[in-house]
Amino acid sequence: MPKIVDHDERRDEIAIAACRAIAKRGLEAVTLSDIAKEAGRTTGMLAHYYDNKWDLILGALRFMHVRLEQRLSQRLNGKTTLLELLQDALPTNAARRAEAAAWLAFWTFAANQPDLLKRSAQIHSDWRALLRQCLLRTQKDARNWPDEMIEHVVSSIMLFTDGLYVKAITRPAMYTPAMQVTLMGEHLDAVLASARTRHPRRRKPLRRS
Amino acid sequence: MPKIVDHDERRDEIAIAACRAIAKRGLEAVTLSDIAKEAGRTTGMLAHYYDNKWDLILGALRFMHVRLEQRLSQRLNGKTTLLELLQDALPTNAARRAEAAAWLAFWTFAANQPDLLKRSAQIHSDWRALLRQCLLRTQKDARNWPDEMIEHVVSSIMLFTDGLYVKAITRPAMYTPAMQVTLMGEHLDAVLASARTRHPRRRKPLRRS
Repeated sequence: MPKIVDHDERRDEIAIAACRAIAKRGLEAVTLSDIAKEAGRTTGMLAHYYDNKWDLILGALRFMHVRLEQRLSQRLNGKTTLLELLQDALPTNAARRAEAAAWLAFWTFAANQPDLLKRSAQIHSDWRALLRQCLLRTQKDARNWPDEMIEHVVSSIMLFTDGLYVKAITRPAMYTPAMQVTLMGEHLDAVLASARTRHPRRRKPLRRS
Repeated sequence: MPKIVDHDERRDEIAIAACRAIAKRGLEAVTLSDIAKEAGRTTGMLAHYYDNKWDLILGALRFMHVRLEQRLSQRLNGKTTLLELLQDALPTNAARRAEAAAWLAFWTFAANQPDLLKRSAQIHSDWRALLRQCLLRTQKDARNWPDEMIEHVVSSIMLFTDGLYVKAITRPAMYTPAMQVTLMGEHLDAVLASARTRHPRRRKPLRRS
């Protein structure tokens, strides 16, 4: 009987290993062989899933994003708060810390590679769209906000998350998982309250007695 | 008559050239000779000011920070708003974009170098202290806030600034200088209003009639 291989699981495995290898060796220095070693696989096996190093790295980042999207989408219909949803995107455990470090390395390397920035722009747009969905699903009144305001709130959450990516990697002792969640919670409270001040919830008109 | 050399000006020149060279070549790849070329100087001249490549890079980042501190300190006593002060720290022109790119590269490289992170921690602490000073000088009532709240507001501004560093480098077309200032302005409004909701300004008691 042929062995049954779960390809999704294996791509996942390789992507996580790639993030770990990038975090250890740096994005420029990391080789396919480092990633294979980290994954406990052969480079031949990696080649079955990815064409070259850059394909693998972009693939890994994109794959991580798809996984995040899946996790968030599954929870969007429940009674999950916006903070609970976004916690899933913060570098609060080893796997997500490795992902944050990989992003940091990618941004640095891609800064001077317009082609690479262009290819990664789609992930950025997807992430914006996902944040927007999280916002509109959890804050019903936000659907009545002007589009520009929704986009600014999304940008604000995104920028704050990028900042937490940086600080979780460069100042881990100060920006612990608990501190990340506290600060993100305060940020969301502040940004949403500010948006509501400018665009108050519509209330039912008071009936005159 | 001997030539008069303005050493401060020259250190400044070298530091700015170092940031440009790092942005072009990457922090790991950049050499002293690249930096010298960018500065229009000899490597011998650089050696007069810095011991080695890492000394120069950390020196450049520290120097940029001291310059920022000087600019902000000069304006702290006037009627400058917090947003006006912070604009000086945002990557809204070529020199500050180069600085942001250098920080991004430094964070990536230092992520796995505990020694380097430790040596850069002082710049992080200085930046926190400076932001705290900007906050307390421009928002008089903040002096009555609990210390933890002041620190959280400082963290929030810092994280948002880091996010703008990342986005100004990786998505420059979307995060233009004007957009950076708009978003930072909205962030400050939201964070300060939120802090004041939790710790309202003391008002004179109403006299009963």
